[in-house]
Parts: sequence; C-alpha cells; structure tokens
Amino acid sequence: MNLNITLLPGDGIGPEVLAQAVKCLRAVEETFNHNFSYIEASIGAVAMDQTGSPLPEETLEICKASDAILFGTIGTLKYDDNPYAKVRPEQGLLQLRKELNLFSSIRPVKIFPTLLEKSPLKKEIILGTDFVIYRELTGGIYFGEKKLSADGTVASDLCEYSEKEISRITHLAFKAAKNRMQKLTVVDKANVLETSRLWRRVVSKIGESYPEVALEFLLADNAAMQIMLNPKQFDVILTDNLFGDILSDQSSAICGSKGLLPSASIGNDYAMFEPFHGSFTQAKGKNIANPIASILSAVMLLNHFGLNEEAQAIIVAVDKALRKNISTKDINPSSTYGTSQVGDFISQNI
Amino acid sequence: MNLNITLLPGDGIGPEVLAQAVKCLRAVEETFNHNFSYIEASIGAVAMDQTGSPLPEETLEICKASDAILFGTIGTLKYDDNPYAKVRPEQGLLQLRKELNLFSSIRPVKIFPTLLEKSPLKKEIILGTDFVIYRELTGGIYFGEKKLSADGTVASDLCEYSEKEISRITHLAFKAAKNRMQKLTVVDKANVLETSRLWRRVVSKIGESYPEVALEFLLADNAAMQIMLNPKQFDVILTDNLFGDILSDQSSAICGSKGLLPSASIGNDYAMFEPFHGSFTQAKGKNIANPIASILSAVMLLNHFGLNEEAQAIIVAVDKALRKNISTKDINPSSTYGTSQVGDFISQNI
Ligand SMILES: CC(C)[C@H](C(=O)O)[C@@H](O)C(=O)O
Ligand SMILES: CC(C)[C@H](C(=O)O)[C@@H](O)C(=O)O
Repeated sequence: MNLNITLLPGDGIGPEVLAQAVKCLRAVEETFNHNFSYIEASIGAVAMDQTGSPLPEETLEICKASDAILFGTIGTLKYDDNPYAKVRPEQGLLQLRKELNLFSSIRPVKIFPTLLEKSPLKKEIILGTDFVIYRELTGGIYFGEKKLSADGTVASDLCEYSEKEISRITHLAFKAAKNRMQKLTVVDKANVLETSRLWRRVVSKIGESYPEVALEFLLADNAAMQIMLNPKQFDVILTDNLFGDILSDQSSAICGSKGLLPSASIGNDYAMFEPFHGSFTQAKGKNIANPIASILSAVMLLNHFGLNEEAQAIIVAVDKALRKNISTKDINPSSTYGTSQVGDFISQNI
Repeated sequence: MNLNITLLPGDGIGPEVLAQAVKCLRAVEETFNHNFSYIEASIGAVAMDQTGSPLPEETLEICKASDAILFGTIGTLKYDDNPYAKVRPEQGLLQLRKELNLFSSIRPVKIFPTLLEKSPLKKEIILGTDFVIYRELTGGIYFGEKKLSADGTVASDLCEYSEKEISRITHLAFKAAKNRMQKLTVVDKANVLETSRLWRRVVSKIGESYPEVALEFLLADNAAMQIMLNPKQFDVILTDNLFGDILSDQSSAICGSKGLLPSASIGNDYAMFEPFHGSFTQAKGKNIANPIASILSAVMLLNHFGLNEEAQAIIVAVDKALRKNISTKDINPSSTYGTSQVGDFISQNI
C-alpha cells in the first residue's frame, strides 16, 4: 500500500517520540512491502516562533493533501504560565481539528498485562479493563464564543452543541459498541446542563436503531468516581469535548504511566493519530520520554487503513520490549534505555 | 451554645442518613451541655411532589432564619432518566446555594487509617493523603444562561465568571492553605478557556498578599490524572464549579466508599453542611446506606461554630465504630449493621 503521511512533531518531547513511531512504520514498510512517504510540517510553539502562527497555512495544506497525520505533542511552559498570552500553541491543534473536521477522538484504555503492577490502582480493580472513550472533538465549550469585558473583570465561554454535531459521533460510538461488548455509557451533566439534556435526547433517539447495544447515562461526577472504583464496567464511553478531555486523561492514569496510550482523531475526510500525553517540556531533548504512546498511535494509523497484521506486528514488538524490561525510566526506574533505544528495539523486532 | 439548625432531608437516602447525624448532635448537646433546636423543611423531589417546587418559599425562609443547615441528599431516578423534565429536584439545591450565596464548597479528602484497605488505590499511593478542595459554588456554567433553539436542535450553556466571584473564594482558599501546608493548586483549563485565564490572573494577583503560600496551576485533565497517580502532592485545591464537581467526586473515590466524605457550603451569611455523595435512590428505606458522611457533615458544622472538642468527640466515636467493624455493607460486606445501628453506636459513644 502507498500512504502519504504528514508528520507534525510539535513541541516538547513531540519530535523525539514521533521519531520512534516513524522508525516502526519504516520497519513495517520493509517487512510487509509497503511504500509510505513522509512529509514534515510545523505546528504549535515551534511554528509560532518560526512564522508567528501556531498553525501555518502551509501546514494545513500539507495535512489536507495527505492520507493521514501523525502528531507529536503541543504546548510549552512559557505560554502555560502566562494567562495574558493572546496566541497559544494549543490553538494550532484546536484549529487543525476544526479545519479538518476531526470530530471524534477515539481513546482506547487497555493495559498491557506486563504493566499491571505499574497502575496506582489495585490489580483486582483493573484486571480486565478494556474500554474506549469517544470524545467529541470539534464542538462544545472549546469552540464556543469567548468573551472578556473591556475592563477585563468578566470572562465567559459558551458551550454549544447541535443535534448534528452530537449525532455524527454518536453513530460512530454505537457502531463501535456493537462490535465490542454492546454497551454504551454516555457521560454528561444532564441534571444541570441544557447541552447535556440535548445529548441525552439525541443519543436516546439514535439508540433505537441499535437495539443490541445497552445504553446507559452517567453523570460526569459519578463517572470520574466509577473510573477509579470499577473501570471494568465500561465498554464504550461517549461524551462531549470537555468531559472527554478530563475523563480520558484520568483513565490514562489507570496505566500508571502517561506514556502508554494513543488516540485517533477521526472525521469524514481526514484522520490524525497522536499520544494521549502532553508535551512534557521538562523532558525535552533528554532522551527519557516514553515513546510507546506515539508508537501505538502509529498502530492505530495502520488499523485505520485495514493493515491489521502490520499493526499487530508492532504490538507484539512493544509487548516483547515490555517483557524484556526494555523501557524508559517512567516504567522501569532503574532502566538505562532511553527514548531512541526503546524505539530501536521495537522497530528491530517487527 | 444555642444553635438553630435547619434539617433538609431531601430525597433518596437523605432522610435516613441525616437522622443519624442528628442523633450524634443530640448526644453532643447532652454531653457538652448545649442547646440545639431543629426544624425540618422540604427540598428536592419530595418538595416537588408536595408543592410543585423543588425549593418552596417556606423552606427558604426557614433556612434564612437559622444558624446553620444540615442537608441530606437530592435527586431521584425518575427525573435523572428524563431529559425532557422542565423542573428538576437538583434545581432546589442549586437555587438554595444561590439564594443563600453559598459561594464556597469546602470538601476535605482524608482517609481514616482503618479504611486504607478499602481504597481502589494502592496503599503506598494514598498513605498520607490529606487535601481539601475549594470548589466555587454559585457561578460558572451551572448558573450561566441556558438556551434551547425553538426547533430543539441547538442547546447552549454559558460559563461566566467575574473577578469578584473568583476573588472571594480565592481568599478563603489562600487562608486555608496558610493554616495547612502552604500550598495552593489552582485547577483550570487555561490553555483553552477564557474564564480559566481570568481565574489565573485574579488568583496570581491575590497570591501576592500570601507570600508564604506556594501557588501552582494545573490543567484539569492533568489534575484528574494526578489525583490518581499521586494524591499526596495536594494541600489545597481551588477550582471552579464544574471542575470542582468532577474532581471532588473523583477524589472521594480514593476512600473506597462514597459514603465517607462530608462537605461544607459557605457564604458570608449562611453555612450548609452535607455529604459528598448523592441520593442513591436504589438504597432508599433499606437501612443499608452508610451514614458516616452525613455524621461527618455534622462534625464540620460543629467546627464551623468553634465547637472543636465536640467535633473531635464525634470523630473519635466514628473511628471506634470503624475499628470495631461496626459499619454498613459498603465498607464491610459481611456486616449485619444497618444505617441506624451504626448511628446508634456512634452517638452512644460520644
Ligand atoms: C492540548 C490541549 C488543547 C488538548 C485538549 O484539551 O484537547 C489535550 O489536552 C488533549 O486532550 O488532546
Ligand atoms: C446534585 C448536583 C446538582 C450537585 C452538583 O453537581 O453540584 C452534586 O453533584 C454536588 O456535587 O453537590
């Protein structure tokens, strides 16, 4: 298969973890006789420093011309700690999601058997945990009108959802549930929010077309509790942009290290793959960041194009690395393996 | 001391857990020679069934005329599962918070040594956890304008904050941190939300008057992760209404049972005390609900009026019950003690 892949390394540890994912894709090309081409473009703080914009026009064009995007991470401490900054690196990512209409973020939460001990949760709580979060990605309070009064004393953010925005991701989530354990949990705050009540009505209606899927609703506060008390109960979780952001990061903590989970951002025309984790600026350039989440985002890319055998080959190699303790210090404090050594081992074992 | 206490049992398990808290207060009166008077009023689904309103005018008047309010729980499945209901039980609670201007919810997270084993988290993760969440309670997206388009296909909720709303709770949180471990963590989503950036500016400014307190900012997604990975790092967490709702419920899961943590809702003129947990309608009337959170909310009430010795006497009795395994099934699956038996034991040991 021929694939044009855009690489967006971004900020912080993004470039170094992404480089390991690319090593693995190159190994897949060789082993399975494919032909992927890669083109790199800039986004985030790096792009701001170069061009003034966190999403240069050229980057957007390159993304639109490619078959898939592999994304690193975004954000720097410089802007995080400055509540006055008008332009921020993260806007590059948000704008890209919007421009490419990547309305559904798919975030699987599954723990490698070798890493059960790494979880802050007890083994009996997490054993068998395997769920996936469908987070709406281009609507809600992230994209609603933002206001600041002229005297700077009153600020507001609007959370808005339309039936159309809700229904397109709802169909994806129901389809996923149908192919998994047939359970869909919608997380909202319907006892307080009007948008949540719209979500409930739209999802309930669509649910009639998926009679084999058991549909339940859970308030966001309760969901945050249940993810800790009993994560095994979930199959597919469907939720809005903000709840999805918080709950998916919380869920990633089940795995003990932030460096392990990938996500896919899907629309009707484009698809982007990235780690759950952030830019971890403190670790930048130190060769200590865990590349596994990024490598697994390449796995999701392969699955997206039906290259399941290829995807499986990477997973097997990752699993081998973990079993042999070839991992970064976040997983294995006495490890002497760095980001690139882990990437080398995994790619060489494909 | 003379105190007029309004009792608002509410829905679900509210009445039965509240009754145990009152038993304990009566025991305190007797032992320490105080004179508390109690007057009951209705709120929530119960009030809706009786009067059509989830917060009858009479209830509000009674609350305003009293020194403190002891609250049970609110909500019923009937309304939870109906996204079309125009009036909801929870509105009674939200309206009460607003009318009494209870702008600060104080939610301590601390685990009884006897219950360490109950946590879903590993012992080494939680040992020493002791933090308190200051959740803004009368602003933000809970109270902003809600809209539904005429054709019912577009909904919105407005999140709005003013400098004044932020600064009054910020002062309380800094003062608390000053008297504790001198660390304040502000949780927001400043990389996306305008209101979060206003929070950062206001809090940073006020922080200059509390130089002894170390101030840090944490994004809400990261906070949800950190609460699971390393809850010991926190001293005082300050956050808005919605983030506070989610993160405090998540934090309560650290304790393993939902039935253990109390909270206080404080304003300049009134104070209300209640459990973290919800109305748990499925358990209503079965004498199985854990009364400890409600009993500990009475402890917070006593502390609020400087009755610290009295408060301590209840805590000692609760601790004794837990050490003797006199607890409900959520803590002790083979227990034969019900809600009222646990309440009897604790109140008799004051
Ligand atoms: C970088 C940030 C804007 C982003 C978000 O909040 O969506 C990130 O946290 C994520 O979850 O993908
Ligand atoms: C009952 C509900 C409206 C309430 C809230 O969300 O504030 C509750 O969850 C709480 O945390 O006190």
